[in-house]
Amino acid sequence: MTIDTANIRFDEKGLIPAVVQDALTGEVLTVAYMNEESFKKSAETGETWFYSRSRQELWHKGATSGNTQRIVDMTLDCDGDSLVVRVKPEGPACHTGARSCFNEKVFDSGEKVAGTQILSVLEQLIAERD
Amino acid sequence: MTIDTANIRFDEKGLIPAVVQDALTGEVLTVAYMNEESFKKSAETGETWFYSRSRQELWHKGATSGNTQRIVDMTLDCDGDSLVVRVKPEGPACHTGARSCFNEKVFDSGEKVAGTQILSVLEQLIAERD
Repeated sequence: MTIDTANIRFDEKGLIPAVVQDALTGEVLTVAYMNEESFKKSAETGETWFYSRSRQELWHKGATSGNTQRIVDMTLDCDGDSLVVRVKPEGPACHTGARSCFNEKVFDSGEKVAGTQILSVLEQLIAERD
Repeated sequence: MTIDTANIRFDEKGLIPAVVQDALTGEVLTVAYMNEESFKKSAETGETWFYSRSRQELWHKGATSGNTQRIVDMTLDCDGDSLVVRVKPEGPACHTGARSCFNEKVFDSGEKVAGTQILSVLEQLIAERD
């Protein structure tokens, strides 16, 4: 597929936020930023490349840690100013070694959600009927 | 729970990106922005409030459309500059009427992922054994 950045609206700094999501579990791993060059490198190589705002340089995720992320697909939102990047991670996304960068709960309604728990319910149901 | 914004690093414009995710399916619905006031209103009311960068005002998601989002939890990332907001949506997230704002695929590796498709496989397996 051709790499078409025409509809991507990079911001005044030339960046777009990229929500990196585990393609299998749906877990959000990281929010990072891409500029046009890192978007193209991601599409060309099939692995995530970002732009580090603190170091002001391109950054190939996993280049030093080995925890690269293989890209399944990238999807742009309705106003063209954010991306969802679905990946298969080779290891933890977070520099702390955690699977995801999102670990500090700042609000909790206390509500339970089935979410992926439904898988174990179904698994048990199948086992019972086996 | 008390509303503690101490660890949230709002950017130079006083904003933090919020990844709104369907708590049940894991689908990313929207990336929007919160300022401190909208974060507090979200936590107080249990529904999503954002800050509109174009209109420069607080915005209660669903106030006019009725498509509010009940918040399950909000989680901060390791460097405190982005949020994941898991919600139960009352209707479509996108102003176009789509369930999610992310609909324009700009890169596709062609790779298949099981992801939530596994649910329909399990459903069929249960039906066959019923």
